[in-house]
Amino acid sequence: MSVPEVLRDKDLMRSWSRSRRCNGQTIALVPTMGFLHEGHLSLIRTAKSLADLIIVSIYVNPSQFSPSEDLSTYPSDISGDLRKLSAAGVNAVFCPAELYHSASGNELGGHREAINGERVVASCLEDVGSGHETWIRVERLEKGMCGTSRPVFFRGVATVVAKLFNIVEPDVAVFGKKDYQQWRVICRMVRDLDFDVKVIGSDIIRDFDGLAMSSRNVHLSPTQREKALSINRSLSKAKLAAEKGQKNCQDLKDLVKQTISEAGGKIDYVEIMEQQGLRPVEEISCPVVICVAAWFGNVRLIDNLEID
Amino acid sequence: MSVPEVLRDKDLMRSWSRSRRCNGQTIALVPTMGFLHEGHLSLIRTAKSLADLIIVSIYVNPSQFSPSEDLSTYPSDISGDLRKLSAAGVNAVFCPAELYHSASGNELGGHREAINGERVVASCLEDVGSGHETWIRVERLEKGMCGTSRPVFFRGVATVVAKLFNIVEPDVAVFGKKDYQQWRVICRMVRDLDFDVKVIGSDIIRDFDGLAMSSRNVHLSPTQREKALSINRSLSKAKLAAEKGQKNCQDLKDLVKQTISEAGGKIDYVEIMEQQGLRPVEEISCPVVICVAAWFGNVRLIDNLEID
Repeated sequence: MSVPEVLRDKDLMRSWSRSRRCNGQTIALVPTMGFLHEGHLSLIRTAKSLADLIIVSIYVNPSQFSPSEDLSTYPSDISGDLRKLSAAGVNAVFCPAELYHSASGNELGGHREAINGERVVASCLEDVGSGHETWIRVERLEKGMCGTSRPVFFRGVATVVAKLFNIVEPDVAVFGKKDYQQWRVICRMVRDLDFDVKVIGSDIIRDFDGLAMSSRNVHLSPTQREKALSINRSLSKAKLAAEKGQKNCQDLKDLVKQTISEAGGKIDYVEIMEQQGLRPVEEISCPVVICVAAWFGNVRLIDNLEID
Repeated sequence: MSVPEVLRDKDLMRSWSRSRRCNGQTIALVPTMGFLHEGHLSLIRTAKSLADLIIVSIYVNPSQFSPSEDLSTYPSDISGDLRKLSAAGVNAVFCPAELYHSASGNELGGHREAINGERVVASCLEDVGSGHETWIRVERLEKGMCGTSRPVFFRGVATVVAKLFNIVEPDVAVFGKKDYQQWRVICRMVRDLDFDVKVIGSDIIRDFDGLAMSSRNVHLSPTQREKALSINRSLSKAKLAAEKGQKNCQDLKDLVKQTISEAGGKIDYVEIMEQQGLRPVEEISCPVVICVAAWFGNVRLIDNLEID
């Protein structure tokens, strides 16, 4: 167990990485928002099998939260995180205080001004008067599912990941497949913008009771957590039904919805999509993924299950 | 005079560049759409003063043209270009046949489909059924001036420049200040997305008669060219008037418009903006730039003049 180097500055991070790559070492990046759990540690294990050096970034990205979302209550435990990252044998931790450019003299803070009459979609970043105005949009994949209820989410994720790629310059980046749509958005961005980064999706890690690991699980009461187990249960039921021959997606989605609703969850969406392009399918005839988002109290959870 | 290496493949281009950077050599990129003229050669001279090795890219980018624009008639002379680049002492020429991903099996060609009822802005890229769907938007700077009459232009430019940066990985990139808004859009993108590329704007090069150099000038008839000289004349007049104390921008813009209209040009826009953020000003009290776009027959020309 060696203590990882903690870097807070973009330029230092880049030169750390660049000097090692020039020496022939490969680098894997695991981007996180901190409050690390077993799911993150599993991403790190995947990363270690793919590259010589592992960098974990910790940054709660304001641009992927709407002002109405849970940025202010997003859990944090930086000293706990650093302990876990030491134990995990990570080589460097990138913890920038801020990743976005603040508004300068001749910039109006935050581009919330309506431009040519268009409504400006705003995140918590615009809310604090940032001078940032460049966004990466993965136009089709960012729509639907989480993009419907979280309109700034994928714009914020794609943009911050591009920034991290430009700062860290990794050979490989590992993302959790729990955020399935996010993973696909990033794969598509990397392909379309010619980033020389291999994007790896790592399998969902579940707690002993089957709940998909998430930093937000800490906000669940014991009763809510009990109810939330219905998500995983519903996905397993649907997969089993599909394997037994039920190919009609509407029926499978109804099964998932019913199971979660009966347990007391409030459905945000249940979708069955082909795995790569996330286009909805009506009959299962190719590898698909069932994606779910549901609320338990004030906590919104997502989960998914691939059917190959 | 040594013949530059001509690279057509993204991966070969990247490894050419990366191996030299690891050896401590710095690289400047001059992105072009070919049909090179003295303006481009001046960008190359600027580049040579800033880096050890010069790469010129030649690629007519379909995503910055609307289907109604002049992509199909954009002039081209690749063998002439290579001769000029040899004489200019360029080290490598990046001439990809295609930079965008084509639609694959499960992708509908071209994301022209209306998504959630939103109208999809389409360029010549969508028109040929590309699978590309990731766009970089510099939300404020891409609006107004050329962005008004060319709604896909800056989206296309920012996206292709990001791709070129990710493929070539230059230390420096040189752009002509004739495309003033484009230069500012790229500067902002680089800052906002943390590209480690120094973006340099190079002064406008004018022909013997004062016309700003442009590949499109070849389409002007001798009479149209004579008329088009009114652009530069109008800008000089306005600058002189400003230096003599005329600070009111509306009056200065009227002077420019009148001069060009009288010569037979059709004004697209005349704007006076502060130089960095391109926000319109009413009275000259900071460094500004007068930007003009006007039509002469079927040819749209742009030009500008800074007043410091």
